Amino acid sequence: MKYSDEQLRAGIAAGDVRVIARLITGVEAGDAAVRSLVASLQRATGRAHIVGVTGAPGSGKSTLVDQLALRFRNAGERVAILAVDPSSPFTGGAILGDRIRMNSAAADASVFIRSMATRGALGGLSKATVEALHILDCAGFDRILVETVGVGQAEVDIVRTADTCVVVLVPGMGDSVQIIKAGLMEIADIFVINKADRDGALIVEKDLLALLSLVDLEPGAWRPVVSRTVATTGAGIEEVMTASERHRAWLEGSAQGQARRVRVVAQMLQTLVGERLLAMALQGLGGQVDKFAQECVARTRTPLQAVDGLLALVAAARK
Amino acid sequence: MKYSDEQLRAGIAAGDVRVIARLITGVEAGDAAVRSLVASLQRATGRAHIVGVTGAPGSGKSTLVDQLALRFRNAGERVAILAVDPSSPFTGGAILGDRIRMNSAAADASVFIRSMATRGALGGLSKATVEALHILDCAGFDRILVETVGVGQAEVDIVRTADTCVVVLVPGMGDSVQIIKAGLMEIADIFVINKADRDGALIVEKDLLALLSLVDLEPGAWRPVVSRTVATTGAGIEEVMTASERHRAWLEGSAQGQARRVRVVAQMLQTLVGERLLAMALQGLGGQVDKFAQECVARTRTPLQAVDGLLALVAAARK
Repeated sequence: MKYSDEQLRAGIAAGDVRVIARLITGVEAGDAAVRSLVASLQRATGRAHIVGVTGAPGSGKSTLVDQLALRFRNAGERVAILAVDPSSPFTGGAILGDRIRMNSAAADASVFIRSMATRGALGGLSKATVEALHILDCAGFDRILVETVGVGQAEVDIVRTADTCVVVLVPGMGDSVQIIKAGLMEIADIFVINKADRDGALIVEKDLLALLSLVDLEPGAWRPVVSRTVATTGAGIEEVMTASERHRAWLEGSAQGQARRVRVVAQMLQTLVGERLLAMALQGLGGQVDKFAQECVARTRTPLQAVDGLLALVAAARK
Repeated sequence: MKYSDEQLRAGIAAGDVRVIARLITGVEAGDAAVRSLVASLQRATGRAHIVGVTGAPGSGKSTLVDQLALRFRNAGERVAILAVDPSSPFTGGAILGDRIRMNSAAADASVFIRSMATRGALGGLSKATVEALHILDCAGFDRILVETVGVGQAEVDIVRTADTCVVVLVPGMGDSVQIIKAGLMEIADIFVINKADRDGALIVEKDLLALLSLVDLEPGAWRPVVSRTVATTGAGIEEVMTASERHRAWLEGSAQGQARRVRVVAQMLQTLVGERLLAMALQGLGGQVDKFAQECVARTRTPLQAVDGLLALVAAARK
């Protein structure tokens, strides 16, 4: 069935899951009409709290997200899970992810769950991800859990746009220096040591607390929480929920929290502006990028000269 | 001591390691004079083969790179290792990396080894990385091993600019679906299963070969090689060297290989152009990004409206 714009707007306002799913499919496909409708949506009453969850493959992240979703729902909230896979279209990652995901939350119709395969032109964050979050926010969800695959920069880019960032670790998957190197120290509001019934959980916790103690926090800054969970049994999940509520209160109730929100949004806007600028420039350049690349391979031009040459073409095309 | 431009040029041509190190420090710091000198360097005779190596933290990647470097050197080549850390300046990753890296290659003065902390404005690849590779290429190295931290998108962006991409896996660190999801299938020319004396190495190999058999290769395309190594003892390293030579011959001697090189360079140019366009736009926008971000947080503007507003400002500033 074909919906009119008015029906779509009414569906979003009413939180109709079929309409929400259809609009997300539209932004994922880059449908111009849907994008324009979504851009015109004003945020409804209420305010979604967006919790981003990232962690290494095999850390049990999806189970943790499902557990959190079910509990928030049991507390009377409307909950959505957006699983974002920034890997390239080549791998068909998100489709595979859907197929292999057999979780309790998905079987529960009252939690909206959706995966998206989307990669920004310039990195992990794409406009489609931001649009999907905007749709869910306007549809009146109280809690949106954004889950990513892996712990790479693309995932960090996505998760850092959330209000509250959860980083999932497991015992025995790399030492604390690696936590620093993956840039996780910088983005985590809450560290969850999952599979905490395994050997080494206490060592990971001790290392992490030692690392955190090295960070100079300004007065009023958020001190990252470290929780231990066993997501498969639900142990420790309440503690993660409590920490996420505390973090939300800090964000909304303190000057530092407000400043952090502005910083996060500014970073997101910057990424999206960069993405659009490059897309527009590439449209103007046509086959020139390939031509310059061929010259680099033939060694008649260096890559640095090619970049300058392309920028000159972009500037000339604007005149 | 202060070098003149002529001395720097002569130093590069002669492969003087102090000059090389100084120029890399210059591009890392964004020194305009050094950048301009580096941009003007024409590639010398010879042609460096750039081998990118990535893999999860704890996979023994650095040991593998050291072993490869030493063997290429023993075969009479001039070898450089560039260890790139795309994590944010906040963590000071590269400095820590240098301090904790205690490897055999570093102790061998005839292998040039250098780490860089650098993140592009829009992702992993930064102009400084490309400049450093250009310096090493012009300095006449035969083989440049580019090593990255982690297996995130930032690392993928860096490693995919190499001529030959090596992805290091270890038994027991996530299943094959995760290999797909991390985007590694797409970039690997050579898979190395390191720590192959551990339980599970054969399972990883079997899974990987099964996955690879699912990929439809066009005639003449490169079929990724799977090698098992124990980098700490040197077992299997010869096989990796042989595979990398075979891949180089394919790149240089086949139409498909040439097309692949053009594609890789085109992607790199596109990323660098995007980075420059955003940097220029942000310079013009000044404090506007923060102002729009504040309005988003105050909910007087949606993020999608803010992006459009900023783009309009960028367009107006150009007139």
